[in-house]
Amino acid sequence: MSVLTTEPDAVPAGEEPPDTGERHRLTTLTGLAALSLDAMASVAYGPEAIVLVLAAAGGHGLGFTLPVTLAIAGLLAVLVASYRQVIAAFPDGGGSYAVAKTHLGARTSLVAAASLVLDYVLNVAVAVTAGVAALTSAFPSLYDDRLWLCLAVLALITGVNLRGIVESARAFIVPTVVFVGSIFVLIAVGLFRSEPVSTATAAGHASALADNASSVGALLLLKAFASGCAALTGVEAIANAVPSFRRPRVKRAQRAEVALGAVLGVMLIGLSVLISRFHLQPVQGVTVLAQLADASLGHNWVFYVIQFATMILLALSANTSFGGLPVLLKLLARDNYAPHVFALKADRQVHRHGVLALAVVSAALLVFSGGDTNTLVPLFAIGVFVGFTVAQVGMVRHWRLERGPGWKGKALLNGFGALLTGIATVVVTASKFEEGAWLIVIALPLLVLAFETVHRAYRRIGERLGLGSIPEHPHRDRSVVIVPVSSLSRLTSEALTAAASLGDEVRAVTVCYPDPEDRAQMHALEHAWAEWDPGVPLVRLTCERRTLGRPIAAYVREVTASEPATRVTVLIPELEPERLWQRLLQNQRGAVVAHAVRRETDAVICRLRFRLF
Amino acid sequence: MSVLTTEPDAVPAGEEPPDTGERHRLTTLTGLAALSLDAMASVAYGPEAIVLVLAAAGGHGLGFTLPVTLAIAGLLAVLVASYRQVIAAFPDGGGSYAVAKTHLGARTSLVAAASLVLDYVLNVAVAVTAGVAALTSAFPSLYDDRLWLCLAVLALITGVNLRGIVESARAFIVPTVVFVGSIFVLIAVGLFRSEPVSTATAAGHASALADNASSVGALLLLKAFASGCAALTGVEAIANAVPSFRRPRVKRAQRAEVALGAVLGVMLIGLSVLISRFHLQPVQGVTVLAQLADASLGHNWVFYVIQFATMILLALSANTSFGGLPVLLKLLARDNYAPHVFALKADRQVHRHGVLALAVVSAALLVFSGGDTNTLVPLFAIGVFVGFTVAQVGMVRHWRLERGPGWKGKALLNGFGALLTGIATVVVTASKFEEGAWLIVIALPLLVLAFETVHRAYRRIGERLGLGSIPEHPHRDRSVVIVPVSSLSRLTSEALTAAASLGDEVRAVTVCYPDPEDRAQMHALEHAWAEWDPGVPLVRLTCERRTLGRPIAAYVREVTASEPATRVTVLIPELEPERLWQRLLQNQRGAVVAHAVRRETDAVICRLRFRLF
Repeated sequence: MSVLTTEPDAVPAGEEPPDTGERHRLTTLTGLAALSLDAMASVAYGPEAIVLVLAAAGGHGLGFTLPVTLAIAGLLAVLVASYRQVIAAFPDGGGSYAVAKTHLGARTSLVAAASLVLDYVLNVAVAVTAGVAALTSAFPSLYDDRLWLCLAVLALITGVNLRGIVESARAFIVPTVVFVGSIFVLIAVGLFRSEPVSTATAAGHASALADNASSVGALLLLKAFASGCAALTGVEAIANAVPSFRRPRVKRAQRAEVALGAVLGVMLIGLSVLISRFHLQPVQGVTVLAQLADASLGHNWVFYVIQFATMILLALSANTSFGGLPVLLKLLARDNYAPHVFALKADRQVHRHGVLALAVVSAALLVFSGGDTNTLVPLFAIGVFVGFTVAQVGMVRHWRLERGPGWKGKALLNGFGALLTGIATVVVTASKFEEGAWLIVIALPLLVLAFETVHRAYRRIGERLGLGSIPEHPHRDRSVVIVPVSSLSRLTSEALTAAASLGDEVRAVTVCYPDPEDRAQMHALEHAWAEWDPGVPLVRLTCERRTLGRPIAAYVREVTASEPATRVTVLIPELEPERLWQRLLQNQRGAVVAHAVRRETDAVICRLRFRLF
Repeated sequence: MSVLTTEPDAVPAGEEPPDTGERHRLTTLTGLAALSLDAMASVAYGPEAIVLVLAAAGGHGLGFTLPVTLAIAGLLAVLVASYRQVIAAFPDGGGSYAVAKTHLGARTSLVAAASLVLDYVLNVAVAVTAGVAALTSAFPSLYDDRLWLCLAVLALITGVNLRGIVESARAFIVPTVVFVGSIFVLIAVGLFRSEPVSTATAAGHASALADNASSVGALLLLKAFASGCAALTGVEAIANAVPSFRRPRVKRAQRAEVALGAVLGVMLIGLSVLISRFHLQPVQGVTVLAQLADASLGHNWVFYVIQFATMILLALSANTSFGGLPVLLKLLARDNYAPHVFALKADRQVHRHGVLALAVVSAALLVFSGGDTNTLVPLFAIGVFVGFTVAQVGMVRHWRLERGPGWKGKALLNGFGALLTGIATVVVTASKFEEGAWLIVIALPLLVLAFETVHRAYRRIGERLGLGSIPEHPHRDRSVVIVPVSSLSRLTSEALTAAASLGDEVRAVTVCYPDPEDRAQMHALEHAWAEWDPGVPLVRLTCERRTLGRPIAAYVREVTASEPATRVTVLIPELEPERLWQRLLQNQRGAVVAHAVRRETDAVICRLRFRLF
């Protein structure tokens, strides 16, 4: 899917790309290679999803693989045509969120945004599990450890992203080309064989399944169709990256989109023809793609190359989420739907938190699924289809508003697309509800609610802040600076100098407890103060209980109440130690006082860090 | 042990006790009951430690239980006599740390302090494992889960201490009396029996062991003696709490100390007589005390009462560490050997950190020992004996300096005590080195080193701060206040008002990046600023890279360098949100700027929290 990420030469959070020249932008061909990674990768799990559903009706059911795939290819054609139109209508990119925001109102755009967030998360989990499945198909002994392998791959991707990689879409061209090339070879060779070259995996289970044959109902076909639609994820990537193409951008992007659809369609149909031809059936621990490679090319080095290419492509596909989610969150933050901190690119810490949060949620999904791709694919499909449907409906609205030449045909096309993807959404959700789809049914509205809550809070804050209107003129108040002291040192002198510079009046305060030892210390301090005579009164605050912050906060409140036109500032002097470990030596009085004053008063808190060395 | 904790009516960290009247103080009897908990509790594991060593020489070896116990009782008499003298010499209490500080210099007092820290930690682990052993002796089916039980008990004690209990030594009187009472009954009844009433546990293994008999060497006896000395932990508690006694304090405390020695001695000798009489041998999963109760009183309700009383007493004994360690750390902090934060009682957070740290280290020890008391007892004994030895040697020095009437006899007594405990320390350390004593050998010097490092750092800080001398007179500098702004709102107005009140000159700064979108925002801000005309210049800082804090810090450095007599303050306005979750909505610009300014400049940082609601 990778809706907003695969801008070429995207750079890590924290820095903005320089305005790249036209010659660095994508041509039709490089654009296709660079932006089709997610779509191509979905070939690794899409056909398998169909086979898995149809196998419930035995060998007879599996005979319907090709018709179902043809229907999906039909939907693919509709989607591609539809996205060609999106490209023309939204040449600035933006995907379903942008379309919905323009044509369907805020609420619907948030549904699209929420579905995108879920997609980014699920994309990680699906791609990792599918990648590991490709690996374990090549090395079956690893199959039992697949969950651990998944978590290890996730940890690797997370680690790379924590370090902050410079991800360039161009880096994706080679693995994409290798993968697509080997799939084409697989199909071509397979079509010239009359029977599988290697029957080790497939044939063994054929008889067992044949007995199980039953009638193939319409619902089953619908389910198979809906599940197989997972192969269509990633189709929208080019439409989101139009600004990355070389001029004429729209034309080139449209051509790349059509080419993407053609390549993907040929791959899907070709693979399903082979599935029917070799009478493949789902085998635990071996992906359908691995079986096909086996059957078509034999269990030799080419087989291993295909498995490795698949795994690497899927890992890269998982990686795109880590680049894409922050971009989406930034867009949402700019529209006040997500915390503004996501728009503050300068803060690496935020980026890290985002990466870790995505990793944790993905890890939870991996554990939930037990590392099994086919548990996650339906959930993934739901999110993707919600986005497709919203975008198509938005386009119908677009054409109706625009009423350009031939708008009815265009609107009809998009409407048909919306209908198909809408039906697919409902079918997948209903048929997989108990197996995990409930998760999406709960998470999607919750996310929308969260976006709206954040938005309302920002609107209220903005109103109170008077954003957009010219604020009151600033004025100058009398300033009283209060300095908490507990002993006499250079730090005290430094603090009083700072306070005298900042305030019209300075008062030192000290807290005294009734026990004898403390009283003696207090007398010593008062004596030394009198001797020093800094020209600042020392106010003694007596407190029965051994608390430091509260008496000072109470005094600040008292001063504020008795002198309303006065601005009260509390200046807290602190030592900045020479070495980091020496922070342990600080007595934390400053922190305790600052906490109490901040919580209980409106005073400005100044912290003076005094460097000793 | 509980060296500094068992002051009666001790109150939780954060409050100081009011000056309690004389009638609330302890008499000889209540003092004995209140302060002997740790000593009495050690009866639960001391005799067992002897039996365990002697069993290596079979039934013949076990015959030496009584002689070894008599030797330990002799050491107990020396220790009690010696602590009578400590009470007279140090009527303000204080224990080995105080004695060593006065008479043996800083380094030795730190050795005593380090051994006390280790004792507090080990006391938790030993008491918890011994308590659980008492429980599993009553319910053998729990034996396999003993480590989990230990961790659960530890979690319970930790939870109670995190909440902050009002711990009163008086609360300890009842369980102590019940425990001591039942041990006396056990001994008395046992002495009138010629053979065990219940032979289920003991007799079964007698024959197996008898074959194993071998010669009993001096080293084995020495080892048994050293291990058994674990029964002497807690003897010093009364000497540390002299100020808690009613007048005449010294006399009452001395009497209580002697009574403690007498009760403990009778219990130890009585139990060892029974051990010999009933030919007890170590049985896995059943403590020696449980075997004795069984043999003497039978396997009836009295047996269960004794086991429960033992468990509760041991849990309370573990609890004393949580009260005692903070008091010791406070003393060390006052002498600048530990971070001052430990002396700042006002901060509950610190107390919590201390409790959790103690719990984590104890849990590590529990896991290290697998929940087995007998692995931990030797380590515990080492720490306790180091403290004993240091205190005795200090007392010898004390008498030599004082040269009062009969000083030679007193010095001889303390010297003899020091010799015995010193030998015990060496024997235990050498014989248990590979089984865990290395831990103490490493940890003790490391702790001393840490204390000294902290002390040196504080001394250097004190010198630099000019502590103890009258500091420079404070003066008034010209004050420039810099306010980072990014938009125009009531917050900006509020910040400029605060800045105008604090500074002679105010400058607003804003950071601008070269990309077009940012430039447009900048022009809008400058336009609005001109329209608003707040009388404050808006300084534009252009920065190629997307960082917020660095350009502002660089500007502050520039101002400081060009106007040396000026005090630069950075005022950071921030919203204080209405609800806690809304903190997530803050953009963290303030934190980013504050972090950079603090790290790279000496400017005072003011944070203005603007309450919206």
